[in-house]
Amino acid sequence: MNKVVVVTGVPGSGKSTVIDGALKEMQKQGVSYKLMNYGDVMLEIMKVKEGITHRDDMRKVPAERYRGIQREAGKKIADFSNKTSVLVDTHCLVKKPEGYYPGLPIWVLEELKPEVIILVEAGEGEIAKRRAKDAAERKRDADLLEEIKEHQQLNRAVAMAYSAISGAAVRVIQNKDQGLNRAVSEMVSAMR
Amino acid sequence: MNKVVVVTGVPGSGKSTVIDGALKEMQKQGVSYKLMNYGDVMLEIMKVKEGITHRDDMRKVPAERYRGIQREAGKKIADFSNKTSVLVDTHCLVKKPEGYYPGLPIWVLEELKPEVIILVEAGEGEIAKRRAKDAAERKRDADLLEEIKEHQQLNRAVAMAYSAISGAAVRVIQNKDQGLNRAVSEMVSAMR
Amino acid sequence: MNKVVVVTGVPGSGKSTVIDGALKEMQKQGVSYKLMNYGDVMLEIMKVKEGITHRDDMRKVPAERYRGIQREAGKKIADFSNKTSVLVDTHCLVKKPEGYYPGLPIWVLEELKPEVIILVEAGEGEIAKRRAKDAAERKRDADLLEEIKEHQQLNRAVAMAYSAISGAAVRVIQNKDQGLNRAVSEMVSAMR
Repeated sequence: MNKVVVVTGVPGSGKSTVIDGALKEMQKQGVSYKLMNYGDVMLEIMKVKEGITHRDDMRKVPAERYRGIQREAGKKIADFSNKTSVLVDTHCLVKKPEGYYPGLPIWVLEELKPEVIILVEAGEGEIAKRRAKDAAERKRDADLLEEIKEHQQLNRAVAMAYSAISGAAVRVIQNKDQGLNRAVSEMVSAMR
Repeated sequence: MNKVVVVTGVPGSGKSTVIDGALKEMQKQGVSYKLMNYGDVMLEIMKVKEGITHRDDMRKVPAERYRGIQREAGKKIADFSNKTSVLVDTHCLVKKPEGYYPGLPIWVLEELKPEVIILVEAGEGEIAKRRAKDAAERKRDADLLEEIKEHQQLNRAVAMAYSAISGAAVRVIQNKDQGLNRAVSEMVSAMR
Repeated sequence: MNKVVVVTGVPGSGKSTVIDGALKEMQKQGVSYKLMNYGDVMLEIMKVKEGITHRDDMRKVPAERYRGIQREAGKKIADFSNKTSVLVDTHCLVKKPEGYYPGLPIWVLEELKPEVIILVEAGEGEIAKRRAKDAAERKRDADLLEEIKEHQQLNRAVAMAYSAISGAAVRVIQNKDQGLNRAVSEMVSAMR
């Protein structure tokens, strides 16, 4: 039985590093997973249907058509799971000026039918430090910490709604500094 | 393209003041919004169908009929958005003795199709002080603060469920004492 | 009008004690309630359909069939509510190695149609102490407290999703040490 496992985390949570470690460990154990990025799959469809070539321009597509493409991407990924288990790299919530958009609204969940939704989290301070390395500008620290806290808290809440709608199990994984091994082994236990 | 924007906040959050400020600013910018109060629209329908004239009596209507009227109010507001953008003043959760009721259950969201859901929040202490001005009786402070904290936390959680169901963006705005201007400009950025 | 009231709480929350107290009080008031355990009803169906006799083996049934049985249990309980009000003892979230599973996913809510969902909570420290009495092994305290906190927080979030989907009122009840009477009377007020 192939699985569809979704993995999410805010920028700076170290999601990609945990994914790398978990996929290597799964391979060692002889379990094959195809990694697919939800945004990439959407962008491919957007290119053909809307002539859009940059991720940042995707939200400019009118809501009705945007949602159609979101659903189509879900279907495409689900089709893949007929051949092999799929690890879907995406976001619980995408932050835009007008607010947080759900990464897995009901019409996506209906297609994707995930077994497990993983949230990779870290402390606000750790995330802020990890982001600071590349950030050209700096916000006032207190505001940034508050923003990261809010984003992670709302991610948890929306993940529980995804669970109620789809029946998926939700797993929260702390990816602390010096705690990567533990995070990886927790992710492996959720993917098995 | 007209928009349906929902704005919510617990009593004492200062929601009405932020709404006033945002509507004035939108008018200056030449963007027209019709303000509609969800409870008022429901009460109008209740008067005709159930002979109910007071808001407090609305929950006495049996659940099945109550929900039908809730849905009808959503449809009425959505119809308005064919003519102009609509700002819907309502509650994430309505507190009753038996518990918190959802202001935007799935059958309302299906009709209303909001683009954005705004939560106007403030600190528990600030809200308690703002309420105290009119409250005839006083609760023990610690209990009241705990209640406000719980209500705002559950509002966030249920808003994320509304988002997963409808695809609406969710925006949390802090309306702190001496922070009204910032709250108004954040609300304007979510309505634009 | 008969009611369907759901009551939930993590192990150590003291849910059963609060249920006992509330049912006795309701009886005194002449209100009849049938107590049904969701897992028990599922296990009965599992025995017949899947030959499963232990609760721990239920999740081994493939997802599609598991969900069918979950739905059937919901229907069975709802049928009971034609005769008498029903108090449904279940979990907001069931913790398994791969993550938290929703106790009341959308297909259960569609059958069960609960009026009220009650969350019996207690402080993390109190819950840890209550559990310690029977636990053979002990976890490192900080980890256990963090786990209980996470579980109760996610319970709240998923309960709000259940509310948005079903329209049920959600009531949070604190069952503190030396606070049983208050917890019982709050539960009674939500069941009336």
